[in-house]
Amino acid sequence: MTYCLGMLLEEGLVMMADTRTNAGVDNFSSYRKLHTLAENEGRQIYACTSGSLSITQAALSTLAEGIEGEDEDAPLLTLQTIPTMFQAAQLVSDVVQATRQDISVTLAAERVSTTVSMLLGGRIGNAPPKLYHVYTAGNFIECKPESPFLQIGETKYGKPILDRAVDCATPLAEAVKVAFLSFDSAIRSNLGVAPPLDVMVMPTDKDRPIVKRRVEPDDPYFADLSQRWHEMLRDARHSIPDPPWMKDVA
Amino acid sequence: MTYCLGMLLEEGLVMMADTRTNAGVDNFSSYRKLHTLAENEGRQIYACTSGSLSITQAALSTLAEGIEGEDEDAPLLTLQTIPTMFQAAQLVSDVVQATRQDISVTLAAERVSTTVSMLLGGRIGNAPPKLYHVYTAGNFIECKPESPFLQIGETKYGKPILDRAVDCATPLAEAVKVAFLSFDSAIRSNLGVAPPLDVMVMPTDKDRPIVKRRVEPDDPYFADLSQRWHEMLRDARHSIPDPPWMKDVA
Repeated sequence: MTYCLGMLLEEGLVMMADTRTNAGVDNFSSYRKLHTLAENEGRQIYACTSGSLSITQAALSTLAEGIEGEDEDAPLLTLQTIPTMFQAAQLVSDVVQATRQDISVTLAAERVSTTVSMLLGGRIGNAPPKLYHVYTAGNFIECKPESPFLQIGETKYGKPILDRAVDCATPLAEAVKVAFLSFDSAIRSNLGVAPPLDVMVMPTDKDRPIVKRRVEPDDPYFADLSQRWHEMLRDARHSIPDPPWMKDVA
Repeated sequence: MTYCLGMLLEEGLVMMADTRTNAGVDNFSSYRKLHTLAENEGRQIYACTSGSLSITQAALSTLAEGIEGEDEDAPLLTLQTIPTMFQAAQLVSDVVQATRQDISVTLAAERVSTTVSMLLGGRIGNAPPKLYHVYTAGNFIECKPESPFLQIGETKYGKPILDRAVDCATPLAEAVKVAFLSFDSAIRSNLGVAPPLDVMVMPTDKDRPIVKRRVEPDDPYFADLSQRWHEMLRDARHSIPDPPWMKDVA
């Protein structure tokens, strides 16, 4: 399993991913799922991946090597030169489809899933940050202010807090905090989601630095947040009265 | 969609269900999903249903009419006479399977799902309350103290609060309150879950009354709980500090 979250807010872009993978319930492992696809002064592109590890790895390696376009004499298409985030999403989608096609018959015969989803986020040049959800079938949607977050993998346990707490005006630091609360719920309810967590924060303001961090299982901030949240949920629960019509029963 | 929850605690049994059904996203309706299957001094049996409405309705009607056992001269098998909750779960499972088999080829041809799940709870005679989850395939599991709740339908949004707050020693009235919080999360995150909610509470102590209630959308207790919970989650969130390493960014 996997849980990855992207948020595109007025103040910037947040991407967060866990690192747990599993092939069956008896084969757990740890792999990075938040990847840096391009990173220099003019472009910063990141992806979160979920689904078949072999396919996402092969797709990312193919993207790194570049692919031939329709004109064989032209330079290879790569994320290092692609001019817009929209075209980056198209390229990623094309590569994922090609990778799946190469292997899908063999994997289908073994009843191995070839499902893949990706969150693709970043910015190129002076354009504002963008965030896309690339689906298994190769189609993709762009994150928009009315629904300022996208999730892949084990999405549901962590969604209620996002539904309550995140809109496009949420300050960036608070959004990162809420993202950690969302992961805390997913981690508690699904063994297939686990730290370390990888985080990337890209402020819309290009004068502010991009932050990339790995949050280890013993990270003091995350441990404190998790503990406080648990205690406050307990206190909040206790402060709500029991149903008045239960007085006769219990 | 549907969300149903059963909790089997030291103090008693709680069953709760929403009432929203839908065939596609353009055909929402409201149906009772918490059903009374037997209710007299010696036995009280209830079921929550999710999945194909036509199949669960037909199965419940068949159960009400009774089915022939192996001995054709013997009286019909019904939940009114079955001697134990285990045998009640077997009977329910058999009826669901027979109902599915009758219609499954036709429905499969129309690509209509025949998936059905049920929570079956209650008590017979002086035996303690029992709770079962009957799966589509007809197998079933019994709720046990280590995992004192079972869910069917849209289970995930409402599970984190249960994971945090419910163990078998949770007092009955508090458990009902937590069940409402679980439904509050499911209702907020999935349009396919909606009030009115139906509740049944059966204290283990047979001297205390069974409570059955329908909680309407404008129920003052549920509205107050929902509002308080939302505000306390917001306050709790705000009281947790932002990540210290976000100071440079935002």
